[in-house]
Amino acid sequence: MASPSQLSSTSSPMFDTLVVVGVGLIGGSVAAAAKTRHLARRVVGLGRSAAKLRGAVDRGILDEAFEDPARIGEADLVVACTPVDRIAEDIRRLARILPADCLYTDAGSVKDPICRSLADDPPVSGVFVGGHPLAGSEKGGWEHSDAELFQGKLCVVTPTGREPSGAVARTEEFWKSLGMQVRRMSPQDHDTALALTSHLPHLVASALAAQLTEEMRPFAARGFRDTTRIAAGDPDLWTVIFSQNATAIADHLDAYISTLNRYAESLRSADSAALRDLLADGQTARDKIELSVD
Amino acid sequence: MASPSQLSSTSSPMFDTLVVVGVGLIGGSVAAAAKTRHLARRVVGLGRSAAKLRGAVDRGILDEAFEDPARIGEADLVVACTPVDRIAEDIRRLARILPADCLYTDAGSVKDPICRSLADDPPVSGVFVGGHPLAGSEKGGWEHSDAELFQGKLCVVTPTGREPSGAVARTEEFWKSLGMQVRRMSPQDHDTALALTSHLPHLVASALAAQLTEEMRPFAARGFRDTTRIAAGDPDLWTVIFSQNATAIADHLDAYISTLNRYAESLRSADSAALRDLLADGQTARDKIELSVD
Repeated sequence: MASPSQLSSTSSPMFDTLVVVGVGLIGGSVAAAAKTRHLARRVVGLGRSAAKLRGAVDRGILDEAFEDPARIGEADLVVACTPVDRIAEDIRRLARILPADCLYTDAGSVKDPICRSLADDPPVSGVFVGGHPLAGSEKGGWEHSDAELFQGKLCVVTPTGREPSGAVARTEEFWKSLGMQVRRMSPQDHDTALALTSHLPHLVASALAAQLTEEMRPFAARGFRDTTRIAAGDPDLWTVIFSQNATAIADHLDAYISTLNRYAESLRSADSAALRDLLADGQTARDKIELSVD
Repeated sequence: MASPSQLSSTSSPMFDTLVVVGVGLIGGSVAAAAKTRHLARRVVGLGRSAAKLRGAVDRGILDEAFEDPARIGEADLVVACTPVDRIAEDIRRLARILPADCLYTDAGSVKDPICRSLADDPPVSGVFVGGHPLAGSEKGGWEHSDAELFQGKLCVVTPTGREPSGAVARTEEFWKSLGMQVRRMSPQDHDTALALTSHLPHLVASALAAQLTEEMRPFAARGFRDTTRIAAGDPDLWTVIFSQNATAIADHLDAYISTLNRYAESLRSADSAALRDLLADGQTARDKIELSVD
């Protein structure tokens, strides 16, 4: 049986021109995955750094790259991979230039502000359907692009209900064609879930890393390293994410601090039965994650 | 130039009989490393489960294994790898049976209670020098034994000042011969440091894992998984560690909760400058860990 990539390489590609806006880790990986899987005749990058764009073209991740969107020409699908506070405006700006039937999606990790902004102040043409591929790394930059970054991962697609159903289906097909499983949910539900599963862990890891004094650093072994790994992520990107999803993160943080306070009380009162219950809760929940993989 | 293991295989071994008490991940790995590096003519396991001991002998990790310490016979070095609340008593019990010149060390991750107990109520013969190899895994059991687990890692050796200096030096030589770097410090200083670098991360990871409801589980991607990985550790073992080092852990936990409260306030007041400062503190501290490796 032919694999999906064999099929797509022998049949005509899904898109004529795919445009990636913002060529960092995610944008570069979308481009690399689209190239590897022959999803578009032409993969175009749009960015603000000529040097980065040239590097990505030289490495074969992009066919062409521009700083000026007026030079893009034809476009069927735009994937916005810029920071979450710039995505809505980037899409409105491009819609004034690109063909009227262009489809827009994005990779922003907070969805309600973007989807609400584009519903309230829609692009002059084209259709936007929000997306969030749950894949990434603390290592930013297109140099870490990986055509297999999305393989087997989940992409949340967040229609508001006002998009033509064909556009939602085509957006979902696009993310699936990168090897992803797709799940549809509202932007608000997405943000509540990700506040817990992505934004709170970043906060927890960052606050823990910050406790480490220079004197204590030699004693930070594998447990400390793993637990704090994601704290190496770019503070500017994460400030924007935290700001855009502040209430949901703060709510989950309150619940987390409550659990920590139960630990503190159990430690101070030498209540080993309570400590064991808390530790067993954590172990049970962690083991269920491993069981749910594959 | 000959490597250390080549040297030790052609010269006479460092010990005649090395006894490992408690054949789990750490005990099994000590035995495996000692066998691989030809550190002893005979590597003996002492444990409570005949089936486990037989398995470790069959796999070649141990030369001999006993449930009854009276059957051990000769012994030069005992490494106690039982849970931290049993180590002192295990050593006192063995000292009533084994040769009078035997050296004792251990792998317990809380040192002051063990070292104080053995200083206040010393074994009838032999000398004890506390040790803690900073190596491990959330995967327990001798089946995960790894002869290279200790290679390049740090071992803290915690003399109380009352041991003969030759015994401290010989203990340090033993841990070095497993490939470890050795650092000498007081049991109390060790416990304060490890409360921050090992015990607090376990608590933080466990409390985070416990926040994850079944509904949210599909959205737990790599960041959540890495940050909570160590929460899979055995709750019984960690209850004992937490109980034995409760005050130091609670003190570090209080400081950690203070940082989290600063995050909560910054989120609620939409203070993105404060959020950025907090995130930058975490990133800076995390980056310094990576720089300190190798």
